Amino acid sequence: MLFEKWMSEGSVSIPNMLLKSYKKIGLSDNECMLFIQLHVFIESGNYFPTPIELAERMTTSSHEMSSMLRSLVGRGLLGMEQYEDKEKGVYFEAYTLQPLWNRLMDSLKEEEQIQKETNKEQLEQ
Amino acid sequence: MLFEKWMSEGSVSIPNMLLKSYKKIGLSDNECMLFIQLHVFIESGNYFPTPIELAERMTTSSHEMSSMLRSLVGRGLLGMEQYEDKEKGVYFEAYTLQPLWNRLMDSLKEEEQIQKETNKEQLEQ
Amino acid sequence: MLFEKWMSEGSVSIPNMLLKSYKKIGLSDNECMLFIQLHVFIESGNYFPTPIELAERMTTSSHEMSSMLRSLVGRGLLGMEQYEDKEKGVYFEAYTLQPLWNRLMDSLKEEEQIQKETNKEQLEQ
Amino acid sequence: MLFEKWMSEGSVSIPNMLLKSYKKIGLSDNECMLFIQLHVFIESGNYFPTPIELAERMTTSSHEMSSMLRSLVGRGLLGMEQYEDKEKGVYFEAYTLQPLWNRLMDSLKEEEQIQKETNKEQLEQ
Repeated sequence: MLFEKWMSEGSVSIPNMLLKSYKKIGLSDNECMLFIQLHVFIESGNYFPTPIELAERMTTSSHEMSSMLRSLVGRGLLGMEQYEDKEKGVYFEAYTLQPLWNRLMDSLKEEEQIQKETNKEQLEQ
Repeated sequence: MLFEKWMSEGSVSIPNMLLKSYKKIGLSDNECMLFIQLHVFIESGNYFPTPIELAERMTTSSHEMSSMLRSLVGRGLLGMEQYEDKEKGVYFEAYTLQPLWNRLMDSLKEEEQIQKETNKEQLEQ
Repeated sequence: MLFEKWMSEGSVSIPNMLLKSYKKIGLSDNECMLFIQLHVFIESGNYFPTPIELAERMTTSSHEMSSMLRSLVGRGLLGMEQYEDKEKGVYFEAYTLQPLWNRLMDSLKEEEQIQKETNKEQLEQ
Repeated sequence: MLFEKWMSEGSVSIPNMLLKSYKKIGLSDNECMLFIQLHVFIESGNYFPTPIELAERMTTSSHEMSSMLRSLVGRGLLGMEQYEDKEKGVYFEAYTLQPLWNRLMDSLKEEEQIQKETNKEQLEQ
């Protein structure tokens, strides 16, 4: 019965690149945790969780949550998109983690560039 | 080339029960993040990452990391086991997240118990 | 652009117990593949994919798919539940993988039982 | 106790792109299942499972397994790499799923190309 409940909750997949490199792209532990929570909400079909919903699961207050969300959007790491629900004729907002994945990819690119230049310098010496 | 690097890093699976309920069992956002990092290290074959290795990926200092690890072990949420490497004839330590999973399961059990009692009281009224 | 599409598709978590033990509980490779596809559909919010939808992703024909689904339900490995959409006042069917998880847990229990008896016999000799 | 065993087995992350598109790139259900099993072995540190090890978990015989592996390597979907274990001074083989990820990415690229051309044609009419 409990095991059934556990299984019905399921698991979420987190790219290791995020966990290994969030510090490099300027995220704090708390901000990474917020991204993971946003990911869980989005996967479960809630594309725009409120600061209050997020604060229910985190030890960060809903007030701090609002300012963290604003900061992440401002730094171009968290995206916001507008969708139209044609059936109901309304627009709704959705968070997207795509800017985060792109930033991580960029940091990978920079690393590779530095690697190449280091190799080149060593060859020239 | 970059995509290959991304894919070779892979992904890690995190039970949603942890992400939804860590606050209920008394963990802070930072402590949950530390558990996730421990999970990643263990999955990659490093069963006993040092505070320094952990601090390289987190915005928590290695000094704070040591005290966080001690606190989690002390509160019975993080386990430590000793294994024997028979080939090399040495013992080594390994962290285990099993106490954490058990605690989450217990919290699920308590919730169900409270649910049942509430239902019973409502019937008796 | 392509990387964005890849990331937006996401990943799905599959318990290793299923992949390591499906043969022991009498599932064929194809049947396990069907369970994984059902899992993906359910996670994406489609709780009752049709044999035609499943056959679009698999090399099994929709005709064979129907008989595989019937067989899995008949053997008590795939569950079907009825839910009420109260907003729309209609009932809908949903597949559930819970019987599968329970069967895998039972097979784990049996293994442990056999292990214990073997250990006991060895002690008595 | 059983729950502990379940948790210690863990979960594996599978990109949804594989599950949704393996048919399009010419893989059968069985071949996709084999790729998933290879992924599980590799993640657990066994980089070159034998046909016998694979056949223990699958309903495909070890004989068929050998020919499936050969076929996947021949079609450029499964890669093989040689590594040097410098400590022991030996070389060892390892499977890599990178060619599979690249092929899936290529199929995504083709789809986008077709989409663009269709859009262009519709505009020109």
